Amino acid sequence: MYTLIHYPLCPFSRSIRLVAGELKIDPLLVEEHPHTSDPEFFEINPAGTLPVMIVDDGPVLCGPYAISEYLSETRPSTSDTQLNNGLFPGDAAVRAETRRLVDWFHVKFYNDVSICFLEEKIYKSTDPDGTAPDIKMLRAAHQNLKTHLRYIGTLSEQRNWLSGEDLSFADLAAAAQLSCLDYLGDVPWDECEAARIWYARVKSRPSFQSLLRDRVPGLIPSSIYTNLDF
Amino acid sequence: MYTLIHYPLCPFSRSIRLVAGELKIDPLLVEEHPHTSDPEFFEINPAGTLPVMIVDDGPVLCGPYAISEYLSETRPSTSDTQLNNGLFPGDAAVRAETRRLVDWFHVKFYNDVSICFLEEKIYKSTDPDGTAPDIKMLRAAHQNLKTHLRYIGTLSEQRNWLSGEDLSFADLAAAAQLSCLDYLGDVPWDECEAARIWYARVKSRPSFQSLLRDRVPGLIPSSIYTNLDF
Repeated sequence: MYTLIHYPLCPFSRSIRLVAGELKIDPLLVEEHPHTSDPEFFEINPAGTLPVMIVDDGPVLCGPYAISEYLSETRPSTSDTQLNNGLFPGDAAVRAETRRLVDWFHVKFYNDVSICFLEEKIYKSTDPDGTAPDIKMLRAAHQNLKTHLRYIGTLSEQRNWLSGEDLSFADLAAAAQLSCLDYLGDVPWDECEAARIWYARVKSRPSFQSLLRDRVPGLIPSSIYTNLDF
Repeated sequence: MYTLIHYPLCPFSRSIRLVAGELKIDPLLVEEHPHTSDPEFFEINPAGTLPVMIVDDGPVLCGPYAISEYLSETRPSTSDTQLNNGLFPGDAAVRAETRRLVDWFHVKFYNDVSICFLEEKIYKSTDPDGTAPDIKMLRAAHQNLKTHLRYIGTLSEQRNWLSGEDLSFADLAAAAQLSCLDYLGDVPWDECEAARIWYARVKSRPSFQSLLRDRVPGLIPSSIYTNLDF
């Protein structure tokens, strides 16, 4: 049994929920806010970051890097999973490409785009002392998002999936980031058809369906959020 | 043959140089500035980050995550290396702990401490248009550094090395960050004896010696930088 401490609109939590779905792991979900200062949570993860996966009679896994590699190493036999060739398929070079892209989405995309939308539109709106969103910052993040969409489009036109022939953790990490922005209705899908087609393929996977049921109090998802034909 | 694109006082480049030293890989070193806007470098790594490892007749590996995992998967037999049990030794749980700590030093320590010292004391001093260092920011980073030193001390008192019985990439990632600050003479070693003892053990390893020979023009290293008995 697994317990996942997560936040519904945390992109890193979502990437691990997608992994769990693909590997047919059904963790008990426990919600924690990304800005928590709960000392009990810091006892579990001194970095104070999400997600955290607790394995019954096993280790406490902190962060998407440790969790994804652990699940990749210990996952059940491939026949039980939807992800036929594992989270990091291919040879060492393809796995390096998957990891480069995971880093791209977890660090570069997050810092260029996601963090701004999350802070300005989600955390501020759910904070009783929150101020109005900073329009200038959101505009810059929106511009960055267009560049990233084009990069996703280019990769998905050159390859079957983002890092190669097979679906990998790179696709799940990328889709997890985009899904939070899609909840807000902030992804300009008409800017890049190839990126839209790639996202529609990930969004249609059974592992994605629990994400589409997420609701954050006070924040109604965009009209296209649950639509598979957006 | 391997080529490593690096910067002498980039902590991520240093972590990979330590890995290379431990695995008895002797890459050709090519220097690039962390703030480069050279389009040729962005062709190699679209993220524009360091380090990049180019494997002859093999892949281009971008970033410490992809490089460390690739070298761990493809490293020569253990008898040829100093790192007897690999970069990620132990069982899956210990490897998850190593990766948690790599994340801790590459993300949390870097953002809490290193980035401030690097920007304020190194990049500004080597930039002809650079302004004076921001003393308030440096003071905050120095406070954070004390907290991190105590954490390193606690871990090294509970375990033989930071993530467990064996030296791992966690130790190299941590020492790489600290070594940049030690060049500047900014590590308050007298604040935490256990952290000092742990660092002295890493600093004494043969893999560390090339780092101690680094010099950045216009920046003289602190008097204790090369001293193994500091």
